Amino acid sequence: MVDKPAPDASRRSEKSRRAIYDAALALVGEVGYPKTTVEGIAARAGVGKQTIYRWWSSKADVLLEAFLDLGEQAAQAAHEAGRTAPETYALPDTGDLAADLKFVLRATVDELLDPRFDAPSRALAAEGVVNEQLGREFVTKLLEPQLQLYVDRLRAAQDAGHVRPEVDPRIALELFVSPLAQRWLQRTAPISHEYTDTLVDYALHGLVPRP
Amino acid sequence: MVDKPAPDASRRSEKSRRAIYDAALALVGEVGYPKTTVEGIAARAGVGKQTIYRWWSSKADVLLEAFLDLGEQAAQAAHEAGRTAPETYALPDTGDLAADLKFVLRATVDELLDPRFDAPSRALAAEGVVNEQLGREFVTKLLEPQLQLYVDRLRAAQDAGHVRPEVDPRIALELFVSPLAQRWLQRTAPISHEYTDTLVDYALHGLVPRP
Repeated sequence: MVDKPAPDASRRSEKSRRAIYDAALALVGEVGYPKTTVEGIAARAGVGKQTIYRWWSSKADVLLEAFLDLGEQAAQAAHEAGRTAPETYALPDTGDLAADLKFVLRATVDELLDPRFDAPSRALAAEGVVNEQLGREFVTKLLEPQLQLYVDRLRAAQDAGHVRPEVDPRIALELFVSPLAQRWLQRTAPISHEYTDTLVDYALHGLVPRP
Repeated sequence: MVDKPAPDASRRSEKSRRAIYDAALALVGEVGYPKTTVEGIAARAGVGKQTIYRWWSSKADVLLEAFLDLGEQAAQAAHEAGRTAPETYALPDTGDLAADLKFVLRATVDELLDPRFDAPSRALAAEGVVNEQLGREFVTKLLEPQLQLYVDRLRAAQDAGHVRPEVDPRIALELFVSPLAQRWLQRTAPISHEYTDTLVDYALHGLVPRP
């Protein structure tokens, strides 16, 4: 292996890395976070334990990056389907706030209903509920950066006069993001595109009659 | 013990029952749902395993009733403090929807911040995320009946012309209930009375400017 030229080694690394991510996500979805081990991930990925420890310091680190990679794959797929700009770290801004929010939330519904995403995400979320340190790490590194994209989009809408200037965007986004999260996490009711469209309409226009 | 008259036996039963609830809640908060056993609950409550099996068929049943009892205690305390009507199975209706929702959500914040409630509730919620059967049972028996109180209050507000008639109350309630649930469960940000007041204002009046 050491005789191979760099490009091949790099491709091989990339392949190992992806195999490790896949193994980590599959394993945590099957046995839960507490029973997932670096040894188990290595065995399933067909690599040595040391290969994992060369790149990551713990199972939490492997899983964190595996989820970040899953998100990037989804963003890449959306880009290839022509649905988003190459710069994927922003929500669409067509000037129509309701349409943009509905578009992104519909994509989120699709992701939440994807079995590849469901089991590992549930395992991590469940652990985060009872394991404060892990929960805070995953919120800080995975969830909050996604929520900040909504903050940015709502701020742009405020600049355009489409959202009341006194509204706090970090709270406002929860009116449509949190109901979807709770339905998915706690299975309180089904999720669908129609449902998230309704959330956006209610959040933007309020429940009380307009004069 | 069999010679004692019925009232004493009833009081003793009540005492055992409460000891079993307390033991079940403490244990699940400490070791999590999977490691909680009927034997462990019995040992901690100082009763025989058969005493538990006389009243309940499984640890899930014990925990379900323990949580229902915790909710009844909170309602009873609120009633004794003069804050609610004796009929506790309805939200207050003073005719001011915003004030009534803020009142109930502030009380919910206080309950969520109560350590007696926090650890066992997290343990159950975490298990429900990954254990679909248990999750659905607890949602059906514990969470959904509470959410229906909001449905009733929003329907009354619709009858009074305070909520748009085309709004679905079962979805509308999620605009203020789910953000609080997500902040508490996933620790995405702090919870407070000011926060839930803001949620109610945003949900009722919407994010976009009124003409």
